[in-house]
Amino acid sequence: MSAGTARSWAPIAFACFWSASRLASLLEVNRDTFRALGASLSEAEVEDPVEHLHRLADRYLDFATEHANLLRALFEHRMEDDRPYPDDLLDMEVATFALVHKPLLKLLPEYPAGQVGMLARTLFSAVHGIISLGIEDRLVAVPPQSLRLQLSLFVDTYLAGLEAYVPEPPSDLRPER
Amino acid sequence: MSAGTARSWAPIAFACFWSASRLASLLEVNRDTFRALGASLSEAEVEDPVEHLHRLADRYLDFATEHANLLRALFEHRMEDDRPYPDDLLDMEVATFALVHKPLLKLLPEYPAGQVGMLARTLFSAVHGIISLGIEDRLVAVPPQSLRLQLSLFVDTYLAGLEAYVPEPPSDLRPER
Repeated sequence: MSAGTARSWAPIAFACFWSASRLASLLEVNRDTFRALGASLSEAEVEDPVEHLHRLADRYLDFATEHANLLRALFEHRMEDDRPYPDDLLDMEVATFALVHKPLLKLLPEYPAGQVGMLARTLFSAVHGIISLGIEDRLVAVPPQSLRLQLSLFVDTYLAGLEAYVPEPPSDLRPER
Repeated sequence: MSAGTARSWAPIAFACFWSASRLASLLEVNRDTFRALGASLSEAEVEDPVEHLHRLADRYLDFATEHANLLRALFEHRMEDDRPYPDDLLDMEVATFALVHKPLLKLLPEYPAGQVGMLARTLFSAVHGIISLGIEDRLVAVPPQSLRLQLSLFVDTYLAGLEAYVPEPPSDLRPER
């Protein structure tokens, strides 16, 4: 390669290096976020599963309030060019959902574990939605004390529903509405 | 201003213009998204409020699946430098939440309307969370048919909970957990 060619490729090489190192730092930040979130949520554990789920929701709200930008970086980041999301981050995500799985399994001992796994993910995602839209001051934000109250009411309502509502056996075929 | 000064300011002026026009287009895209989403959700209306809520969730899932990038642009965009979010977009957001308000009011005629307004927002946000994390293929995505089933199960469970669980009168002071 001539000196001229090397010079003309230099900016492209630099851009690739910069982009790759930016991605690496972002992924590292996201790993740290999962670790910090996991540590905080793990401390929520108590014997009573209902109380446990309330404390999980409360701590998620605390974390989201204190580290809004970290959670955004975690949930809004997408890999470019169909590159796969790193396996260890996927494992961390599964481990985070599993924190909700444990108290739900205690509450629903007669459900198949796979079904409870899906319910755990649904509940996690619902709480995530309530918190992430609730703290978004770009949207019409919910006042913090009111958000905590609504979240607690939501958890109680959902659990009352799980107790009251016995679903039909799961089937992938649902009648058209 | 000398020609030299004008020249040195030109790139900055251009950057400001570019940034402002990019923001204007993004806001215009978001307006279109609210309009299209509102039109689709409005068509979900039927007499029975439970069926209506199911159809709203179903249509939101359809919209999110077909227009994932538009919804991301809507929910992930934040104004820079604390600039206020345009009032007409806030109104469109409130109107979108109101689509869930109507069937909930029918289901809960004895609740104060303000309380039902918060429940509508909570339910909208929960469904948004379940769908937005569920279709995210960066995360461990839920297969589409299974997501639709989980969403329907969630709506039934939450409504069963609303029926079964009579909350205490709302108070902004909740005992510390």
